[in-house]
Amino acid sequence: MSLRIGAIVEALGGELRGDADRVVTRLAPLESAQPDELSFLVDPRLAHRLADTHAGCIIVGPAGAAAASRRGDCIVADNPHLYFARVTQLWRRAHGGTPRAGVHPTAVVEEGARIDPSASIGAQCFIGRGARIGAGTVLKPRVTVGEDCVIGARGLIQSGAVIGGDGFGFAPDEGRWERIEQLGAVRLGDDVEVGANTCIDRGALQDTVIEDGVKLDNLIQIGHNCHIGKHTAMAGCVGVAGSARIGAHCTVGGAGMILGHLTIVDHVHISSASIVTRSILKPGHYTGFFPIDDNGSWEKNAAALKHIHALRDRVRALEKRLGGPSLA
Amino acid sequence: MSLRIGAIVEALGGELRGDADRVVTRLAPLESAQPDELSFLVDPRLAHRLADTHAGCIIVGPAGAAAASRRGDCIVADNPHLYFARVTQLWRRAHGGTPRAGVHPTAVVEEGARIDPSASIGAQCFIGRGARIGAGTVLKPRVTVGEDCVIGARGLIQSGAVIGGDGFGFAPDEGRWERIEQLGAVRLGDDVEVGANTCIDRGALQDTVIEDGVKLDNLIQIGHNCHIGKHTAMAGCVGVAGSARIGAHCTVGGAGMILGHLTIVDHVHISSASIVTRSILKPGHYTGFFPIDDNGSWEKNAAALKHIHALRDRVRALEKRLGGPSLA
Amino acid sequence: MSLRIGAIVEALGGELRGDADRVVTRLAPLESAQPDELSFLVDPRLAHRLADTHAGCIIVGPAGAAAASRRGDCIVADNPHLYFARVTQLWRRAHGGTPRAGVHPTAVVEEGARIDPSASIGAQCFIGRGARIGAGTVLKPRVTVGEDCVIGARGLIQSGAVIGGDGFGFAPDEGRWERIEQLGAVRLGDDVEVGANTCIDRGALQDTVIEDGVKLDNLIQIGHNCHIGKHTAMAGCVGVAGSARIGAHCTVGGAGMILGHLTIVDHVHISSASIVTRSILKPGHYTGFFPIDDNGSWEKNAAALKHIHALRDRVRALEKRLGGPSLA
Repeated sequence: MSLRIGAIVEALGGELRGDADRVVTRLAPLESAQPDELSFLVDPRLAHRLADTHAGCIIVGPAGAAAASRRGDCIVADNPHLYFARVTQLWRRAHGGTPRAGVHPTAVVEEGARIDPSASIGAQCFIGRGARIGAGTVLKPRVTVGEDCVIGARGLIQSGAVIGGDGFGFAPDEGRWERIEQLGAVRLGDDVEVGANTCIDRGALQDTVIEDGVKLDNLIQIGHNCHIGKHTAMAGCVGVAGSARIGAHCTVGGAGMILGHLTIVDHVHISSASIVTRSILKPGHYTGFFPIDDNGSWEKNAAALKHIHALRDRVRALEKRLGGPSLA
Repeated sequence: MSLRIGAIVEALGGELRGDADRVVTRLAPLESAQPDELSFLVDPRLAHRLADTHAGCIIVGPAGAAAASRRGDCIVADNPHLYFARVTQLWRRAHGGTPRAGVHPTAVVEEGARIDPSASIGAQCFIGRGARIGAGTVLKPRVTVGEDCVIGARGLIQSGAVIGGDGFGFAPDEGRWERIEQLGAVRLGDDVEVGANTCIDRGALQDTVIEDGVKLDNLIQIGHNCHIGKHTAMAGCVGVAGSARIGAHCTVGGAGMILGHLTIVDHVHISSASIVTRSILKPGHYTGFFPIDDNGSWEKNAAALKHIHALRDRVRALEKRLGGPSLA
Repeated sequence: MSLRIGAIVEALGGELRGDADRVVTRLAPLESAQPDELSFLVDPRLAHRLADTHAGCIIVGPAGAAAASRRGDCIVADNPHLYFARVTQLWRRAHGGTPRAGVHPTAVVEEGARIDPSASIGAQCFIGRGARIGAGTVLKPRVTVGEDCVIGARGLIQSGAVIGGDGFGFAPDEGRWERIEQLGAVRLGDDVEVGANTCIDRGALQDTVIEDGVKLDNLIQIGHNCHIGKHTAMAGCVGVAGSARIGAHCTVGGAGMILGHLTIVDHVHISSASIVTRSILKPGHYTGFFPIDDNGSWEKNAAALKHIHALRDRVRALEKRLGGPSLA
């Protein structure tokens, strides 16, 4: 596998400083890159690392261009991270890694499902009756798409994902649970990615909606009737309970958890492992998890934590005895 | 798809106030319901919402009946939430959404497995040797039921669920781990539901037991040798470590985590994202997670938290200097 | 199913005290064991339990040997836990529970994949092109192994596991996400176990590496480019974000979460539900989660927690008014 760096610049633009006929056989991080490999520098503050790399050619931004071209061949791009992403795509296309259009013979497609001829349905997928799969969308092996669910164009669904399982809805009945049939479906917009073994439940009455450009990592749970806005991204192990309404351009770190029936506006960023228990109506960065410590310190602090309310009262009493709160 | 509201009341009971020949074409929430749609009001404190809905007919309890019948057609039921659940079931049956009995031709059923003729085994399911599937139970596509595992009657297992994977058991051996073969199985009672990609491990020596009426949402992990009592419900992403014994009529919120070898009595309710590290022997509602905050405030408080033990000592010292703890 | 205890000792060593012709029909815990069952005592501090068991024979260590042989037949082994593990393996082999070598006819194996003839590939597995499966490795039904991924010898992969899904990598582009193709693969060493529905993502440029003897429980997420050292074990629902480097002989409790690009040295033990947000460069035991409490107490303490930073300032002010921090 190899590419001429001249061919890369012809395909993707950017300014080539160096030998267009240099051939690279791999993409590699700066630290390990060899003379026949192409690397990249995203953060110009790390330009000092250029001195130590053996990479044959480096993708850099304008800020790193001078330093990079002093040491050897480079491609100067306005946004080197984005350029690098496009090189990975070019690489995959050039080396035959693009999934073939069509339905694998071991996939099961039920009556009334409509699959765009340019879509690729992997081995052992299941597509329920009435489901629709858009142009250019790729389902890796062993994806389940339930009846009447819709996936837009250019989607990518990893193995084991379950789109359109039944939402979790019951009415209590004297200590037992009576099932509420889930009569809605799931609708994914265009350019949506869904990770391995991630689950998106169908709505109870209306549809669960994932808008264009949303990216979901592995092992994520999206409850019934959720609505996730455009270009929001969630890392692995996130849970979103039913009927949450999440805005556009949000991010949720790994194992973040969002309770049901909440609203989160656009441009909200939730840290990993943080639990959202109330609506967030102001863009920003929110966090809530117990900081890790050596086990002994944690045990002492966790025990004291159980009395923090009482401790506050004790401080208040001290302040009162000394004549009211200080002004410090 | 449509139903006469007279037909609904004939099938499910309740008191119809209005036109039995009205036809509804969908079920919908109050906010969005249209004149050809059936809606419902569960909480009588929200009766003021009746004024704004365009629903053609509304399911209400006795407390909301007067207000609802003033505005138009309604069905009065003792428990409107339960009634609504039964309408969703009626809707599904009336519109052909009930899975067909029998084994899909792409399912793999090993020797010695016994499947009730009224059960429905979806595409690409795997049923191991000696497993048993009860009457009326539905396995959606791509469910795995390991050898010798038992599922009772009227169960519903969503896609990707793995019932009877090996429990996680090893004996340490000079820095290596020696596998303990898992010789038990999994037994699910009647009316059990298991969510998409949920895993229930087989026991090491004896069986993992899930009693009648238990409801498990998606992406839940149930370790080997657990015992979960009747009608307990768990939301998505919950983890239960091995040999936990959980009572009947409990609930566990999303991403709750229950450590191994614990006992939890009946009627215990664990909040989302809370970690149960000791047995709970008293019914009630238990919680433990770090509250979310804007990231800056969290950082300050998390840093202070690491010194809370020392802070308590400082308050104690202040109290001593002022002549013993105050009585405030 | 039954075994002579003489045959067990012939196969596994240990000292038999009692009747070699005694036949046991099951393995069972001490509490429930019957006279035709074999049990074991791992912790010699629990030797008093020997008085109450009905087990026909007991595996004990040297410390428990005298007490055990007074009450009846026993097998004395240096490490009774390890001995018990080997008895479970013997039991499985003796009773025909070992998976058959070969590829199940419903598995899909792509061109160029190489599967050792002694490996066992279960029903409905998918093995991508160029993948390699080592000697004696067992894939339970419905496992996915992506293209070019490698699994060593004697591995055990549970149902629903996805090895070699695409890592979660995007470059931001004016509010949209541009996919970074994941050009690396996944390499598992020998004796690796992977739990049900666990996901191990392929690397972006280089491979994700899981070294020999690693044990991963169910529903675990391992991000792209991670490196996990030998004999490290992780319990269910753990998440490891991309590019984390975890040492050998570590353990991570259930639902532990390790953020990306961190380093954890050998012999680090992370408690359940603890979030690792910084590198851990010293062996030891680390913990961080909010302790559970009854909901009312938690609410009061959680509210006070939001002011802990201010509380510290108030204590400081009190100390100042009293003439500097006390020496208590």
